[in-house]
Amino acid sequence: MTNGHRAEYEFYYWPHLPGRGELIRLVFEAAGADYVDVCRLPAEQGGGVERLLEILQHETDPASADGQLRPFAPPIVRHEGALYSQTANLLDYTGRRLGLAGDSEFEARCALQLQLCISDTLSEIHDVHHPISASLYYEDQKGQAVAKAGHFLKTRLWKWLTYYRGVLTANGGEFLIGRRLTYVDLSLFQLLTGLEYAFPKSYERVRVDYPELARQRTRIAECDQLAEYLASDRRIPFNEHGIFRYYSELDLS
Amino acid sequence: MTNGHRAEYEFYYWPHLPGRGELIRLVFEAAGADYVDVCRLPAEQGGGVERLLEILQHETDPASADGQLRPFAPPIVRHEGALYSQTANLLDYTGRRLGLAGDSEFEARCALQLQLCISDTLSEIHDVHHPISASLYYEDQKGQAVAKAGHFLKTRLWKWLTYYRGVLTANGGEFLIGRRLTYVDLSLFQLLTGLEYAFPKSYERVRVDYPELARQRTRIAECDQLAEYLASDRRIPFNEHGIFRYYSELDLS
Repeated sequence: MTNGHRAEYEFYYWPHLPGRGELIRLVFEAAGADYVDVCRLPAEQGGGVERLLEILQHETDPASADGQLRPFAPPIVRHEGALYSQTANLLDYTGRRLGLAGDSEFEARCALQLQLCISDTLSEIHDVHHPISASLYYEDQKGQAVAKAGHFLKTRLWKWLTYYRGVLTANGGEFLIGRRLTYVDLSLFQLLTGLEYAFPKSYERVRVDYPELARQRTRIAECDQLAEYLASDRRIPFNEHGIFRYYSELDLS
Repeated sequence: MTNGHRAEYEFYYWPHLPGRGELIRLVFEAAGADYVDVCRLPAEQGGGVERLLEILQHETDPASADGQLRPFAPPIVRHEGALYSQTANLLDYTGRRLGLAGDSEFEARCALQLQLCISDTLSEIHDVHHPISASLYYEDQKGQAVAKAGHFLKTRLWKWLTYYRGVLTANGGEFLIGRRLTYVDLSLFQLLTGLEYAFPKSYERVRVDYPELARQRTRIAECDQLAEYLASDRRIPFNEHGIFRYYSELDLS
């Protein structure tokens, strides 16, 4: 992160939760990109969540349009004067520029395809704690959340993890796509790390039944490009906002 | 659709529901592409849903891997020997090749970004009738579906439609991206058409409150490239499978 000049990539996301924004941050950090995490800068340095709200404000106000496609929601990246959004789209855009989208057009295509699976998995995980409406409190849909968590953990989670393991092992076991790190490896790392936070008991079974994925997660956490970041205060810990939330009643014993 | 030779694009999707597959079919039809709808061909012509199931079977069987990324779920397209999946990824891939992804790299990027919003909207609509689990019957989660439908129709639907209207009007009112038809226009057409099927009373309000979107839908339906297709038996009518289902108790009066 650099404050002394105008950074190449300006990143906008809710400052107090990892959420989908963390998938973008992992790319910037792993690539050593010149980026600024705008909403987490102090206001006197031009930061704060207000900078994000200013962008979103325009979303329902066509009169203020300047020909650019307005983002519907964060994460958002400003690069070379244009705003980009939608997590998988941002990963494809930044990943291609930062060397984290494979070594060929075909690998970049596979990366986007696999990332969209991860997007689906993350949405299912989010909806476990908000089955009726994202605008209701968890406490107001807790009973339905318990029911949904049971179905998710018994049927869907294993289907997804079996798929990701299949992709990983078919590709040699070290990377999901091609012969080196891509943004999809980083997203799978975040997915597994979030699962351990939100469903610690279930994650013990992941560790036993999917050792290939658990090893992959450790390898990413310890790689040179990320170890310093993960130990820094730039990394936002999980909490009860965003996708992965720990509510003990939702975890299987 | 051509049967006499090996078609350039082989398309695989559940044969009895429009679902997400219809977004791909609309691209092939609007572009006049050389494609075959494999699962809807008779078995004696090499068709049937079994062809799709054969592809999906490999998903959990890494041993059968041949270096290709296996699809997690349909829709699936085979092109130049490779399999592709994930709806937005397929639209970007086929749209770029078939002239339906804008006139520049920037427009193609905007199209993908906007399509991912439509993917999110479609997922929310699907989950209205399956709030607890996609593997439970509707009847077993009907009470929760009624609750979720109320929230969706009162809060989320208008937020999405206001956003799409903003994008459309900011771009001149005729196309969502650039100066001609893209796959995102086709997907918005399908979204609006599905809304009218699933929520006919609510759609009356869409027609009144969002005339720009209703006009856009009519324009797409009547365009030369699609009118013949929409009247043909290649077009699968909506039914109580897939994303858009009509359950009168879920519609607002």
